Amino acid sequence: MNPSEIQLNQEGRLKHFLTTEGLSQEILTEILDTADSFIGTQARSVKTVPLLRGKTVVNLFFENSTRTRSTFELAAKRLSANILNLDIARSATSKGETLMDTLWNLESMYSDMFVVRHADSGAAHFIAQHITPNVAVINAGDGRHAHPTQAMLDMLTIRREKGSFKDLSVAIVGDILHSRVARSQIHALKTLGAREVRVVGPNTLLPHDIESLGVRAFNNLKQGLKGVDVIIMLRLQKERMQNALLPSESEYYKLFGLTTDKLAYAHPEAIVMHPGPINRGVEIESAVADGPQSVILKQVSNGIPMRMAVMAMAMSGQTQELAQEEG
Amino acid sequence: MNPSEIQLNQEGRLKHFLTTEGLSQEILTEILDTADSFIGTQARSVKTVPLLRGKTVVNLFFENSTRTRSTFELAAKRLSANILNLDIARSATSKGETLMDTLWNLESMYSDMFVVRHADSGAAHFIAQHITPNVAVINAGDGRHAHPTQAMLDMLTIRREKGSFKDLSVAIVGDILHSRVARSQIHALKTLGAREVRVVGPNTLLPHDIESLGVRAFNNLKQGLKGVDVIIMLRLQKERMQNALLPSESEYYKLFGLTTDKLAYAHPEAIVMHPGPINRGVEIESAVADGPQSVILKQVSNGIPMRMAVMAMAMSGQTQELAQEEG
Amino acid sequence: MNPSEIQLNQEGRLKHFLTTEGLSQEILTEILDTADSFIGTQARSVKTVPLLRGKTVVNLFFENSTRTRSTFELAAKRLSANILNLDIARSATSKGETLMDTLWNLESMYSDMFVVRHADSGAAHFIAQHITPNVAVINAGDGRHAHPTQAMLDMLTIRREKGSFKDLSVAIVGDILHSRVARSQIHALKTLGAREVRVVGPNTLLPHDIESLGVRAFNNLKQGLKGVDVIIMLRLQKERMQNALLPSESEYYKLFGLTTDKLAYAHPEAIVMHPGPINRGVEIESAVADGPQSVILKQVSNGIPMRMAVMAMAMSGQTQELAQEEG
Repeated sequence: MNPSEIQLNQEGRLKHFLTTEGLSQEILTEILDTADSFIGTQARSVKTVPLLRGKTVVNLFFENSTRTRSTFELAAKRLSANILNLDIARSATSKGETLMDTLWNLESMYSDMFVVRHADSGAAHFIAQHITPNVAVINAGDGRHAHPTQAMLDMLTIRREKGSFKDLSVAIVGDILHSRVARSQIHALKTLGAREVRVVGPNTLLPHDIESLGVRAFNNLKQGLKGVDVIIMLRLQKERMQNALLPSESEYYKLFGLTTDKLAYAHPEAIVMHPGPINRGVEIESAVADGPQSVILKQVSNGIPMRMAVMAMAMSGQTQELAQEEG
Repeated sequence: MNPSEIQLNQEGRLKHFLTTEGLSQEILTEILDTADSFIGTQARSVKTVPLLRGKTVVNLFFENSTRTRSTFELAAKRLSANILNLDIARSATSKGETLMDTLWNLESMYSDMFVVRHADSGAAHFIAQHITPNVAVINAGDGRHAHPTQAMLDMLTIRREKGSFKDLSVAIVGDILHSRVARSQIHALKTLGAREVRVVGPNTLLPHDIESLGVRAFNNLKQGLKGVDVIIMLRLQKERMQNALLPSESEYYKLFGLTTDKLAYAHPEAIVMHPGPINRGVEIESAVADGPQSVILKQVSNGIPMRMAVMAMAMSGQTQELAQEEG
Repeated sequence: MNPSEIQLNQEGRLKHFLTTEGLSQEILTEILDTADSFIGTQARSVKTVPLLRGKTVVNLFFENSTRTRSTFELAAKRLSANILNLDIARSATSKGETLMDTLWNLESMYSDMFVVRHADSGAAHFIAQHITPNVAVINAGDGRHAHPTQAMLDMLTIRREKGSFKDLSVAIVGDILHSRVARSQIHALKTLGAREVRVVGPNTLLPHDIESLGVRAFNNLKQGLKGVDVIIMLRLQKERMQNALLPSESEYYKLFGLTTDKLAYAHPEAIVMHPGPINRGVEIESAVADGPQSVILKQVSNGIPMRMAVMAMAMSGQTQELAQEEG
């Protein structure tokens, strides 16, 4: 089965949102358009809409992430849903219940949507496939595999800043190997028609088969940034820095940290992105993070309407599918 | 005082829900009818109603139970109430405040309802009697004493599956001694008119005076199940298995675990119930838990409208009483 | 800059609520009137209003305080706001993010209001001044500096019990030195026109410059209470009792505990207040805390409409300011 097929209902519309991989340009564009529709015309405004009124969304966080959980909670509230926050790691399973029993129970409590964060790659996919025929599943990050709402809020930010993807050259810089967002970004950028996608990092942090995804790999930051329109910095997982094969923080900053000097190699109107939380002085210089080309806080803002968009679309597609099965 | 009298207002209507003991068939039937009214006509649907709009429900959990707290939270949201979740064990009392001061403070914050979970028998009753003249109290489980909403969701499940209680023979199997739900179930089943209630378990897990409640006790599972229409399995508290008087898990499973073979002794259309979380291979075989006679997940679903029903009825009765005292 | 100026918008209306210091009698009276307007005409009733519908309030608690957080949560829900509870100490900053980055991120998630509790004096002021031009900030207690919503709910209680401040003599008793609420109370009482404010305590618990605030200091409780109309007891921080300069609990109670005997020195209709949680038998005798002159639980009740009032007024003033900057 096409890994993306499970995400679509019989009408070809979204019913789960697990990965950007395999989704058509049409669907990705519909997601972006839906997100755009939730952004108000005034500065700093996002709409409140009744699209999930009476629906129950469960934040199923097997791995703690206050930031991601908060944005999903805020998005669900703006859709008028009821939210249940569950820290699964510490609760139900402690009584010896199996994971599947926990999920079946939650489904039986008339849940309509699971927002799943898990340390294991494929966890959200597994839940969508095996456990919950009645519930829409949103992947809020699974291991090194995917973090598709982060990738899509990045796409939303790029489109809002640059108008379209058609002529863009994009560089993704840093720890591609351990990043759950880089793969999601590459798939989305290619599908949406970016002219060129580059990855930049030390060989130890680049997957050896990375060019098979249709990207160009660089080990030199200046060369990698030359003329690009969009720079996506990745977060360096400090806790992995013990590994003897990896550079020290200061060495890394010297080679791959985005400074004002390095930024000068990009197109003068290039935008600088980072998924946060940022390590100032490790991946990025404060003058760049807080500078005029940075859109880092716009990414945070765009996270709310983007999460609203995928939740609203998946709920709609799931409801359509259930109605057809009954009818 | 009749232990149930405190639950009723001057008009004889529910104002607290502490125990099924002493409540009339009329009231128990009204609770079941109210719960039924919240279940929608479509599959997997439960209504959202404004019965507790503007009211404040405090989830007062002195003992942790994510599952029970979640169902009350979801039920309260479907009644349009405001919810405050308080983990009392870890918070206010840590500043040296007495329990009664904590409760008086919560009452003063314009709380309308306390949902109380406590490790001590009688805690909810004590709170209703001594502390909160203005607040409706719902017992969400107190020690070994009672867990009346669990018992009533079981009654709802039985009535929806079997139509009525009149001709039913029901077997409750397992650790009757430590169960807070078995007593509540026995009282409800007798009041609602079940033809016969049996308890089945080793003598070490049966209260010595159990037959005074009007039930028949069995130490042999096959005999106890013979011809019954409803089987209610209880959860085995694994943590108590160290006790030298108790059987080992494998021994227990051999004697009292519900397997396909044992189930054959019951009526062919008997339903199998369990309050969850289930210990697969300890109290129940997976083939039975997931089999066609199991209604275990329907019990979970029925927990939402049942909790809505007792909250809505107690709130209504409490409001009526307060209005009369003022008027 | 006048420390209060930052709290007001260009029209002179509240846009943050950080301290009672420097606010005019007109504004303090408007706050009291607004709180009064939220209290219903029936006993035990407070209104639910749509003043913050569609707005997002973040409870930013850098220091744990279940009681204060709960009252703000309940107040925000009665204003129809969306609430996000964040225990900052344990979450985002653990990934090495700076405080300012955390705040900028929260602001970017379309937050409209931060309710800030912090162990450091001036934290809420700092946040309002440097970090969040778009967000209204409410101080929910900062170190020893201020706890202005507590002070204002005390003022609301006094005005509702006594009608006006004009002829009142008020005694504040206890640990003035470490109290974050005493300073806020003194400023509010002086501004609202109380005839006389006294502080009573051992010299070790009175700031040496206290009389510069226009209050009279007493070391003898009987003398300090003589003829007063209002007695505000402060909480004794038991954890500081190790300090060799401080009295033991029993010694303190003997000298400064409010007993029935001592209360007799006050005006016969004097009211007794305490911010809670109370230490029975340390600051106050149970017969007094639960007696006819005590308004301690009324203070708790008044905390809800008071928090509603400052949130509603600050949100309105902040919105006005933002509209003007754009327009």
